[in-house]
Amino acid sequence: MKTPRIVIVGAGFGGLQTAQSLANSGADVCLVDRNNYHTFVPLLYQVATSQLEPEYIAYPIRTIVRRFSAKRHQDKPKTRFLLAEVQRIDFSAQIVETDRCAIAYDFLVLATGSKTQYLGVTGASEYAFPMRTLAEAVRLRNQILTCLEQASQESDPALRQQLLTFTIVGGGATGVEMAGALIEMLRGKFRRDYPTLDLQQVKLIVVQSGDRLLAELPKKLGVYTYKKLRHLGVEIHLQTRVSQVTKESVHLQNNEVIPTATVIWTAGLEANSPQTSEDISTDKKEKFVVHPTLQLLEQPNVYAIGDLAYLEQNSKPLAGVAPEALQQGVAVARNIQQQLRGKSPKPFSYFNKGRLAIIGCYSGVGKIGNFAFTGFLAWLMWLGVHWVYLPGYRSRLVVLLSWIYTYLLGDRAVRLILPI
Amino acid sequence: MKTPRIVIVGAGFGGLQTAQSLANSGADVCLVDRNNYHTFVPLLYQVATSQLEPEYIAYPIRTIVRRFSAKRHQDKPKTRFLLAEVQRIDFSAQIVETDRCAIAYDFLVLATGSKTQYLGVTGASEYAFPMRTLAEAVRLRNQILTCLEQASQESDPALRQQLLTFTIVGGGATGVEMAGALIEMLRGKFRRDYPTLDLQQVKLIVVQSGDRLLAELPKKLGVYTYKKLRHLGVEIHLQTRVSQVTKESVHLQNNEVIPTATVIWTAGLEANSPQTSEDISTDKKEKFVVHPTLQLLEQPNVYAIGDLAYLEQNSKPLAGVAPEALQQGVAVARNIQQQLRGKSPKPFSYFNKGRLAIIGCYSGVGKIGNFAFTGFLAWLMWLGVHWVYLPGYRSRLVVLLSWIYTYLLGDRAVRLILPI
Repeated sequence: MKTPRIVIVGAGFGGLQTAQSLANSGADVCLVDRNNYHTFVPLLYQVATSQLEPEYIAYPIRTIVRRFSAKRHQDKPKTRFLLAEVQRIDFSAQIVETDRCAIAYDFLVLATGSKTQYLGVTGASEYAFPMRTLAEAVRLRNQILTCLEQASQESDPALRQQLLTFTIVGGGATGVEMAGALIEMLRGKFRRDYPTLDLQQVKLIVVQSGDRLLAELPKKLGVYTYKKLRHLGVEIHLQTRVSQVTKESVHLQNNEVIPTATVIWTAGLEANSPQTSEDISTDKKEKFVVHPTLQLLEQPNVYAIGDLAYLEQNSKPLAGVAPEALQQGVAVARNIQQQLRGKSPKPFSYFNKGRLAIIGCYSGVGKIGNFAFTGFLAWLMWLGVHWVYLPGYRSRLVVLLSWIYTYLLGDRAVRLILPI
Repeated sequence: MKTPRIVIVGAGFGGLQTAQSLANSGADVCLVDRNNYHTFVPLLYQVATSQLEPEYIAYPIRTIVRRFSAKRHQDKPKTRFLLAEVQRIDFSAQIVETDRCAIAYDFLVLATGSKTQYLGVTGASEYAFPMRTLAEAVRLRNQILTCLEQASQESDPALRQQLLTFTIVGGGATGVEMAGALIEMLRGKFRRDYPTLDLQQVKLIVVQSGDRLLAELPKKLGVYTYKKLRHLGVEIHLQTRVSQVTKESVHLQNNEVIPTATVIWTAGLEANSPQTSEDISTDKKEKFVVHPTLQLLEQPNVYAIGDLAYLEQNSKPLAGVAPEALQQGVAVARNIQQQLRGKSPKPFSYFNKGRLAIIGCYSGVGKIGNFAFTGFLAWLMWLGVHWVYLPGYRSRLVVLLSWIYTYLLGDRAVRLILPI
């Protein structure tokens, strides 16, 4: 029997895990990504807030693949990596078309993740700063630092205030983590670099459409987070929607206009779905609907996982967090091998280890099972969990050093305006 | 008497040293640069060859300025930093015009350094990769890594060879250091990431117009370097000039055409001279001619230092290396203070501590006084000297870790294709 060809599109948490779980399957596995690095997305906000260098959370895919290929049996084929942009998937011909070449597959795993959704707000895509990719996080960092440079030269108080006003749209985990990190950056030792600037003038505003922060977590955690951020000096607008973003302001639906040079967009995500030869049934946010086995409804040899897949569990859609993608990666690898053995794939069930969010120095919130907790413990657990999941010892070392800088010294390690 | 205003343009080795030496002068010092970071130029080639992350050799100017301002007497004014691009200097009005604002000066120090000179070679400015700025070094790194990615997917042997052929134009210190580091990168452990690629196919060619490498050093050192690089597998063309550079080849004046996807340009530099209201006498490479006191011939209150200044010592022009700029920075600070006291500035004399160049792992060349030496000692001294001069403990730590990676493990720490 000829070696089955498995193609994995996307080297995020889900795609990488699938590749790793298939390393010993004996199949010919090809992992495709448009970048030659894996991005550790949960720490993007720390790149944007000058805590980490981009390289610390970007890990070369070839090195990861080499590491787990090395563990495979010698007779098994190596996992291949292809740096290419996927353009279209031809289900009938079973071919993935990329900008470099076309790859034939017997089984296909789609793990292309999500992209920013601007909810139809005028000017948002032009003027707001998203934070979904490494490049976007660095652009945001450069913007924040550039605003400080310009403000330190600005004589007009109104313009200076505009440069020192930062608005975060969205009060989910990303918005909260960004808010806490940014206010602590601008009020901390970092100040010393701008002696001519009164960083007490800094205004940080969070605009949240819902009636509380961290909607996906228990109410009391949202309330705690609200109090904590207010205490840090963050201005929070609940039940408020943004109607327009311009170069120098954000307009709210209550007709309020906030002059602000920087609008950070964490409000919406949608599936980053690839073009396909045949239509695929989608649900909310363009996600591909999958069977409990993670197979596409229409294509038994094509799987979708992570943010791209729409799957309900206990009649609630999955939240789209890293642990789901990782567990789905393992499940897909197992199911494909089931199919190779002529057996039928098993349904996936997500084991929820809990949720954590970090607010700022020494404070976070978390929920494990029915146990909700706040403060230092949650903060420490957040750091611990993310540190353990970082790929590679080198990243772990440099991230640890940077965290000492951030949390013990109250300073920021990164200060470069280095366009990316 | 009102506080004298001193403006320093450029935060390279010379400009920064001038600012530091003036920190306690009591003058109102303003340091202007188009970047918010100082680039440690001697290590750029290590960024290009995947040894160091760009951040390791880019140091935030505000932090450096803050550090040495902290040491000043409390009554003395702080040194200011201005992030701006200088557009024109008006000598009669004594004003530096930038893209942000105009700054008046009583004394002006020009330390704008040098830029790549393409010697009128067709296509060089479009297709060759220079290596004078951090962004250029990163672009070159991305190009090298992209060539490997493309080669690993290229079925046509001729095209693959072209992608795996790297040509360095120029056999000075930069060209030699780049050649050694690049060949060791491509022949070292780095290979493991490209199992499908035979990196023995890699061709690295150095094209040097003169009859030997490292012309600025004693002949025997050039000969040693030649042997060493040949031994490492580098192909060296002496007394050869480049006539044209295209996207996929380099043409030599002997009509030979080398198919190569990457041409690295280290052949020429010229002064990066600012626009001025009145003409300034210049010499070779557009450099501003200065008195032995480093004052411009025409402007007694304007100084030029580093690569921008043309000055002869023992009837030989200075070589344009970092130590000269550093010593000139000290001298200029002293001379300006002399002028402030109504005394006349003293002539500058360069104390040559020696020259070093690194070839590759465990081998370098050096000259101290009349003592020329090669091999391990020169290599170790090169690393030691550069390590000591690195600004900041953090950079020293991460650079040290990266050097262990490079020289002890024979691997490369950086692998990201991260456009900058």
